[in-house]
Amino acid sequence: MPFLDELSNTADEIDVLLGRLMPVESAPAKRVIEAMRYASIGQGKRLRPFLVCESAKLFDVERPHALRTGAALECIHCYSLVHDDLPAMDDDDLRRGKPTTHIAFDEAAAILAGDGLLTFAFEILASPETHPDAAVRSDLVGQLAIAAGAAGMVGGQMLDLEAEARESHDLDEIITLQGMKTGALFRFACEAGAILAAAGSQERSALSTYADRIGLAFQIADDVLDQESTPEQLGKQTQKDAEAGKATFIDLLGLDGAKARAHQLVDEACAALDVFGNRAGILREAALFIVERKN
Amino acid sequence: MPFLDELSNTADEIDVLLGRLMPVESAPAKRVIEAMRYASIGQGKRLRPFLVCESAKLFDVERPHALRTGAALECIHCYSLVHDDLPAMDDDDLRRGKPTTHIAFDEAAAILAGDGLLTFAFEILASPETHPDAAVRSDLVGQLAIAAGAAGMVGGQMLDLEAEARESHDLDEIITLQGMKTGALFRFACEAGAILAAAGSQERSALSTYADRIGLAFQIADDVLDQESTPEQLGKQTQKDAEAGKATFIDLLGLDGAKARAHQLVDEACAALDVFGNRAGILREAALFIVERKN
Repeated sequence: MPFLDELSNTADEIDVLLGRLMPVESAPAKRVIEAMRYASIGQGKRLRPFLVCESAKLFDVERPHALRTGAALECIHCYSLVHDDLPAMDDDDLRRGKPTTHIAFDEAAAILAGDGLLTFAFEILASPETHPDAAVRSDLVGQLAIAAGAAGMVGGQMLDLEAEARESHDLDEIITLQGMKTGALFRFACEAGAILAAAGSQERSALSTYADRIGLAFQIADDVLDQESTPEQLGKQTQKDAEAGKATFIDLLGLDGAKARAHQLVDEACAALDVFGNRAGILREAALFIVERKN
Repeated sequence: MPFLDELSNTADEIDVLLGRLMPVESAPAKRVIEAMRYASIGQGKRLRPFLVCESAKLFDVERPHALRTGAALECIHCYSLVHDDLPAMDDDDLRRGKPTTHIAFDEAAAILAGDGLLTFAFEILASPETHPDAAVRSDLVGQLAIAAGAAGMVGGQMLDLEAEARESHDLDEIITLQGMKTGALFRFACEAGAILAAAGSQERSALSTYADRIGLAFQIADDVLDQESTPEQLGKQTQKDAEAGKATFIDLLGLDGAKARAHQLVDEACAALDVFGNRAGILREAALFIVERKN
């Protein structure tokens, strides 16, 4: 199956690249590099870097440029997991079947490893190795910072924590929240190919629509998995959100309604790719994978 | 006194700019913006942005470009204070005479506000408003990320925490540690003017030497202040480092030796500015201020 092979190949390449970019031996502060590597290498589906690489293929972007952009994005995603897992936040001991970073190291090292990964993402993007055109690099930095910041992922996590304290939630609220917390990085991932190619607004807009739909579908699928899986299958605690009083799509749509909505979003995502014709086959498979995955 | 007036003017301008860049009203996640503003606006000497602005004056860089670069650097500095003050790190309740961010808000908001400020620094730098030349913006992003990351400030904080656990410390170790933890951001501050002007290596190197010397002098002066001041004078707890078993310059050089070394570093810093002749008068005053300040 070409999609799963491609996903797995990209994950391997991202691991090799992150390993090369974060050498321990030459580092003056080895412990923080070890914690950064622990939090970012050898785990996860690497869905976001994969989306970067596949969107880049639509425009024949050079593979090393796409991989470095994907690695930077993955540093942001992994830092957010490290900080979200902290005792003061979601307080999780297990992530992808391994002890979370603050358990494997300690809280201070986890906070610093998260800060280090977040900072490193921008160091990667600003390097001429990521793209020879400084205007492209600057655009990547600006767009990723907006996606990851207070109007995007960080703000979404804040809203998520605040939502625990409230009794009732409506669908618009949870869509806004998840669009910031999860959707913003998906949007960057899918638009990154267009940014790397300095593509036009029509193509960028098509990728942005695709990203919005799969981002929301991803989060709905997460809620469904959380409901239907065991901790062993997911490699993390399940049904914590419901216990914590957090809003889930299943509360609002029901289990069947949530599944139906996720599939409708996949259809919309695929339709947005029509502008790319046959070239977007793997991105269409990716959309379906997002709602049919088992972890 | 022109130096103190200039320092105070720059601090005011940075406050106005940060206030304008982080509006609460239009933010979807208001609480994290409020915490970011609490942690970054209306306090501090703004020494780092001041050094950016003064180094920029040497090359006739436009004031708004220097101010935005200084504001980005201050976001990094302020985020590092928020995270360093957390219970899992230095566990401080008081900063600049005010409750620290995790006391005024809560730990989760403080972690997210730090993440938000760190991310926002790069959003500011990547904007064409900071500089019309994308190569300059990309250079600013890359250099700030290196200074703030695991080989710079974040790594220095890790080494600082690790140093608590050890019995003995030597001077080289503490100079390396402080060069990363404090020195790296000073270096960026002083080189930023040269980056903004795309100046030559001789001028950049002179500013780098100046920055190294004042960075170290700043840290020695901090240890001296910590020893000789009351919590009321400093607006934070004093003599925590010594109690925690952290290495200080006073342990290694004695109080008089530390003061003498700080003044020697100021002389070296001023000598490095000879290449700029009379134009660097305020930077020379800044070097002296760093060792003679009372808080």
